[in-house]
Order: sequence, then C-alpha cells, then structure tokens
Amino acid sequence: MSPEEFRRAGHEVVDWIADYLAGVGEYPVLPRVQPGEIASRLPAHAPECGEPMERILDDFRQIVVPGMTHWNHPRFFAYFGITGSGPGILGEMLSAALNVNGMLWRTSPSATELEQVALGWLREWIGLPADFFGIIYDTASVSTLHAIAAARERADPSARRKGATPGLTLYTSEQSHSSVEKGAIALGIGQDYVRHVPVNERFEMRVDALQELVEADVAAGRKPFCVVATAGTTSTTSVDPIPEIADIAEKYGMWLHVDAAYGGPAAIAPEFRDTLRGAERADSLVTNPHKWMLTPVDVSAFYTRHPQILRRAFSLVAEYLETPDQAVNLMDYGVQLGRRFRALKLWFVMRYFGRERIAAIIREHCEFARRLAASLEQDGRFEICAPVRFSVVCFRLKGSEERNRALLDAINASGLAFLSHTVLNGVYVLRMAIGNARTTWQDIEKVRDFIFAWADAQ
Amino acid sequence: MSPEEFRRAGHEVVDWIADYLAGVGEYPVLPRVQPGEIASRLPAHAPECGEPMERILDDFRQIVVPGMTHWNHPRFFAYFGITGSGPGILGEMLSAALNVNGMLWRTSPSATELEQVALGWLREWIGLPADFFGIIYDTASVSTLHAIAAARERADPSARRKGATPGLTLYTSEQSHSSVEKGAIALGIGQDYVRHVPVNERFEMRVDALQELVEADVAAGRKPFCVVATAGTTSTTSVDPIPEIADIAEKYGMWLHVDAAYGGPAAIAPEFRDTLRGAERADSLVTNPHKWMLTPVDVSAFYTRHPQILRRAFSLVAEYLETPDQAVNLMDYGVQLGRRFRALKLWFVMRYFGRERIAAIIREHCEFARRLAASLEQDGRFEICAPVRFSVVCFRLKGSEERNRALLDAINASGLAFLSHTVLNGVYVLRMAIGNARTTWQDIEKVRDFIFAWADAQ
Repeated sequence: MSPEEFRRAGHEVVDWIADYLAGVGEYPVLPRVQPGEIASRLPAHAPECGEPMERILDDFRQIVVPGMTHWNHPRFFAYFGITGSGPGILGEMLSAALNVNGMLWRTSPSATELEQVALGWLREWIGLPADFFGIIYDTASVSTLHAIAAARERADPSARRKGATPGLTLYTSEQSHSSVEKGAIALGIGQDYVRHVPVNERFEMRVDALQELVEADVAAGRKPFCVVATAGTTSTTSVDPIPEIADIAEKYGMWLHVDAAYGGPAAIAPEFRDTLRGAERADSLVTNPHKWMLTPVDVSAFYTRHPQILRRAFSLVAEYLETPDQAVNLMDYGVQLGRRFRALKLWFVMRYFGRERIAAIIREHCEFARRLAASLEQDGRFEICAPVRFSVVCFRLKGSEERNRALLDAINASGLAFLSHTVLNGVYVLRMAIGNARTTWQDIEKVRDFIFAWADAQ
Repeated sequence: MSPEEFRRAGHEVVDWIADYLAGVGEYPVLPRVQPGEIASRLPAHAPECGEPMERILDDFRQIVVPGMTHWNHPRFFAYFGITGSGPGILGEMLSAALNVNGMLWRTSPSATELEQVALGWLREWIGLPADFFGIIYDTASVSTLHAIAAARERADPSARRKGATPGLTLYTSEQSHSSVEKGAIALGIGQDYVRHVPVNERFEMRVDALQELVEADVAAGRKPFCVVATAGTTSTTSVDPIPEIADIAEKYGMWLHVDAAYGGPAAIAPEFRDTLRGAERADSLVTNPHKWMLTPVDVSAFYTRHPQILRRAFSLVAEYLETPDQAVNLMDYGVQLGRRFRALKLWFVMRYFGRERIAAIIREHCEFARRLAASLEQDGRFEICAPVRFSVVCFRLKGSEERNRALLDAINASGLAFLSHTVLNGVYVLRMAIGNARTTWQDIEKVRDFIFAWADAQ
C-alpha cells in the first residue's frame, strides 16, 4: 500500500472512528447475534488476489461492527468498564506505524526509556516509593504470573535448573482473581498448593485465617513462598488488609504481590490514597492502565522492588541477542521476547488528561456508584450485597435466583446496557461496574429506571 | 477528548504516518543516542493538569522519533526484518478504537469468530489440515509456552493439581529459539530437563542424536514428553527434519511442537511448501504473521490438534465469567484473560494483499538473499556460513572475529543499515535478514557495496 493510499484510507478510518465514538451510545451494547452467525457471513477462504481497501472497510462496517460488543458504550457496566480514550487511540496508531519490537534497548531506545519514564510517573501518582522498578506486560494475568515466578526464584533458586519443587505454597483470598490460580497452574506450583484464604463480611482477606493456614502448612512440611493480596477484587472491589498481610509475609519470608489491576488507579485521587496503604512493603504490584486509566487494551504495569530476582528468573540471552550496550534490555525481565511499544499510549493519556482530570473521572465514577446504591436501597425491593468501596455496585432483587437471572437477561437483551453477575456467599448477585469515561449520571438513571420498571411489571 | 478533537488530531497523525512511511528510508536505521539520553529529555514528572494534544505530538516528533530504531526502514536487516503494512496499521487503528476484550464470545462475538476465520484462512495457506484449531497469542514465546504446557497436561495430567513432576524431559535442537528453554523454565520443567540436540552441518536437528538422548533419558527413568522442532531457526533459518522427528515423537509418546514463527509463512509460496512437510503430524505449531506476513506486532498464530488438552491445562472459569452461551470462549485456552482484537489486522492484511502477493514478496526476499550470497561468495574475501534456505544470509569476512565485529559496528554506526550477528560452530558471523516489504535490490546493493568498500579500505 503506497503512502498516498494509506493516507486516503487512514483519513476515512479516522472519520469512521470519530463518528463511532460520537454515536456509540446509539448501538445496542450487546450485539444481537447467535454463535456462528458472524463467521457464516464471512468468506470461508482467503482471496487469491488482493482486494481493494474500500471493500474490506465495507465488510468491516457491515459484518464486523454488527457483531461487536461495545466496550466504549456509556452503558457498558459488565466486568470492569474501560475507556479507550482519544489520546490512547492516537498513541496506538503511532505504535502500529512505528512497529518496533522493544526487546532490547538497541531495538528501540525510545520505547525502552519512555516505558521507564511513564511507569515512573504512574508510580508517583499511585504513591509507590522510587525503589519500585516498572515494566509493562500485556495483561494482569501475565504480570501476576511473573510475580509468582519471581517469588519462586527467591524461595527456591534451584527451580530454574531442576524444575518446580513440590510443596511451595501460595496464599490468596477466596475473592482473588482467577489469574492467580492460573499462574500457579502454569508455573507448575499446582492447585493443591494454592490456599484460598477465607474473607470477612466485607470480602477482605482474613489475616487470622491466613496466619492459621500458613502455620498448618509449615507444620506439615510445606513451604509458604508467596501471598497475593488484592486491592479491588473482581466481584466486589474489596481491598485486602495489605499492612497486616505484609507483617505475615515478612514473618514467614513470603513474597508479597499486590493485585491492584482495578483498584490501583484509585490511589491517584488523594481521598483513595489508602487503597494502596502498605503496598510500599510489597515485593511486587500490578495495576492495569487499560482498566480505569483511559488507555486502550492492552497495557499492564508491573512493579517490583527486586528486579534482579525477576531478571534471574527469566534472563536467557542467546548469542544472536547479545548487544554491546550498557542499558536495560527489557526482554530480560519476562517470558515474552517480543514487546510492542505500549508505553506511548500511556504517556499520551497521562499527559493529555493530567493527574487532576483522571482523578476527577475516578472520583465521579465512585460517586455514581454510591448514588446508585443509595437509590436502589431506598426503593426497598433491592439489597446491596457488598460495601461500595469504589465504582462497582453488587445488588439483587430480594427473592429468588431465577428472578435475578431473569432481570439480568432482560437488561442485557434490551440492548440498553450490559451488566454481569457474580455469586457472593452462595447467592447470585448482579454487578453494575462503572468505569467508562463517557458514562453520565443519566446513563445510570436509565438503567436504574429500567430495573425499577421491570420489577414493577413482575 | 471530543470526537471532533479526535478527528482533527487523528487526521494529523495519519498525515504524519503517511509521510513517515514515504520517507522512512531517509532516517538512520539505528538512532544516534546513548542510553539515558531520551529519558533525560523527557519531563521527570507527569503533569498535574492536562496538556494540549498538539504539544504532546510535538514532543513525539522531536524527542521520541529521534530515539527510534526504524524497523520499517528498507535497510533494517537485523534479527528478522518485519513489515507493518498499511492495511495492518488501519486494522490496529480500528482495534484500538473498538477497544474490546475478547475473553469471552459474549464480550465480542466478532473478535472471537473473526479470529477463527482468519486463522482458518492462514491454516489453508500454509497447508495444515482442517483438524488444527487456531488461537492468537501475543508472541511466539507465549505460544510455545502454551505448547509445552499442553504437552505436560497430556503426559502428566496430575501436574495441574499437584505441580510439576521432576523428570519430564524436553528435546529441542541447539539452534532452537531461546523461548523454548524460557518456557520450560517458567513452567517449572527446569533447564536440567531441556536437551539441546546436536545439529548437522546444515544446522538441522540430528535425528540419530535425538533418538540417543531420548533412549538415555528413558533408561535413566526420566520421561520424554515433548520435542520442539524448528522450521526456520533464528540464526540460520535451518529447518529440522519434521517427518523423522514426528516418527520419534510418536514412538515415545511425545508431544511434537513445531516452531515455525519465521519459516511458516514461506509455505504460502508453493515452491516452499516443503518447509512444513510433516507438520500435519505435529500436535501443535506456531507461526508469527507479525514477522514475514506484513502484520504489525503483535500477532502469533498457534495451532493445535488437541484443543481439549490445551483447554484442560488452562481452563479456570470464575463465577463472574460464567456465561449462558454455547460458544468457544477463547480465554479458556490460555494464561491471559485479556485478549485484544488482534485478528482484525491479520484479516485486513490477508484480504488486501491476497495469497499471491504475499507469496511474491516472500519469494522476492529469498531471491534477494540468494543473489546477495552469490555476490559475496564471488568476491572471494567472504564466506557464506550457512545454507541460504530462505531470506537470511550468514556470512563473514575471512579473518579474525575482531575484524568482523569491526565491520558490523561500521555498518550499524553508518546509519545506512542495521545488521545483527550470531555465532555458528564457535565462529562469529554476521546476519543479513531480509524481511521488509519496502526492501529493494538496490537497498541490498547499497549495503553490499558499503561492505566491499570497508573491506577495500582495510
């Protein structure tokens, strides 16, 4: 494709994106398609000869877009709401154009150094000390896998050569993200050595239970090596008591990893600074700018106070990757050799919005959540099933699970909004997760009024 | 950022990209910066209040771009040359704008189904049978990690619960990519259980040596569980004898994974179809469209004939991710929960260029490599250090390592081109890897003439 052809098609695509972002609220949030329907509309075989870009973009608009779930929609309230902001999209456009692999400093000095700078900025915003080294991975799942691998490297340096030693035991709460257990499975730790520590009535890890489990494992000859605390759990956004967990981690020589994938950015706002209280004592921490920080997927920020241990766990430099440079080569700190230039979009977003504006958006989302919860509670037919710590409201209609399932199906089938569910203490619960910068209070009222009307009609 | 502000800035960025792609050959390939120089030019702290996009784009042009290594440059010949083609960039722009997480079918039906369709197309192009299930990961390192994890799941289904069992042993050639060993380290297999099988004079795995190593391990009570063959090794692009390796894999019940990250796309051209001869008997295979298939990083295509084993190794569905849909949820097949919409750019590229054009580009690169090798050989002062199977030429000036290091430094310091090196049979060797679609024969002549002139001046 010639630069001039790219220029023409590029302008067309930018116009489509601008129109899409302006009108995304008009789409049904969930598409009205059945499994297999999109695939059946696409040619089964690739073309032998090339096709004009115009025809490809037509198919994008007419076949692909109608099968999209609109994560940009102001009434996307499932899982965690996210925002692909304009500056983030511009950053991705330039990253795609530059198309570097930042595996070595030499293969893209700017990508390596901008990553360090942008993660230094973010570290200051969330209040971590300067001795935390930052690196970008693709997802929190991969960040947490690296944390557990570094923990293993510290606890059992022979694992790198001799393989995993059975008995290394990991602790995380019942409410932690599935990626913790998945990481332990992948690394060869094994599910039998993952302890799901019970939580209190606020869904926070019970430190007394942690202590008991650790003691029991030590007594049985197992080796506690890692504890993963969560700042903003997926179901309820509860925050584990990090300082008390840090005490136990220190006492037993365990690596403390803090999963702040969702909750970390809240600490940018001074009134939520306590979200990461105690995290300065953690060995590692992950937070995802692609969740609540307006940056398009994927970008996960990983910090550790022990980069040399992380490096020891993963460095393996083939001759063809040796360079004469005295510089950090980020490929040494992870499983992945290939590294997109992900820092650029994050740097664009942090500069364009600044700390105050990002804090204001987070603050507003939390305020919306509190108002929604109050409004549901006041109605009398609903119960709020978990404390509203940040921007997620867990609620249910008093009554049967079937009724709540029917309510969720009705919301999602309406096209008006997309919510998801969870189960708390064995009870089926709806989640309304506010996290898109385009969401207004009117969007939330629309959903609330739909819920009230549905309940009225029962 | 309002849609109208995005539109204005987006048009400006598209124009910059078009100009950049038109003029990328004018830049020095490697930037003239020292470690720390770019970081020192950037503000040490993030702004409290937002900044105008214009100022951010100015800093991008004036600070970031001068520190870039230009992977788009027609004379980028290091590692493996790659191409971020126009249609691929357009696809990335739209993916960034849609900003979906395709973890579940429901969270983006089009992303899930387009991924299956595009990987089906690619599977046909490279001649794999229809029983290979395809999934996109970010990098070949992660694809290979998943292959080894699936191999472990088949050989030792208890590993998921009880952790890795010492003794599972993996085989790969001395010339295989470092990601194979890194994957084994991460998974808790351990380096002591990775056998680096010797190669023949063509740098291909010696099947007799493989057989001997396997026998010795069996005799010692270890359990051979996986063999990784390479179609296109990183140093020399050699291709292991896959059919013979498949015989041994079957005999001993080992999982056969084929690393065709670089070499796979060659099979799109009929005359290189034999690159993947025998791969239809593999249990899994990886090939990277972001290398030789004109698609921007990152997109790695992973295929397996045993998706149910891969799923068993990784599926872990938290309640909050349960959905009522009867559909493939791609998050079940990997470590990563978050999944960018990577298939879109691949689908754009395959449609825009078609099979014939992509095959023609690959064919031309291989032809360039053969002509370059012939020309160097004819000169008399150089030796070609490995067979030129595809588009990479390994060569050296007859004489000392110091002389060859000095030559490489001179090329890379000139700004004219970027080459890298490797070591073959203990000898330091330069690599010229052709893989950018903008590269012409004149670009290669320029580098060759620089090399001749440098040798003349010695």
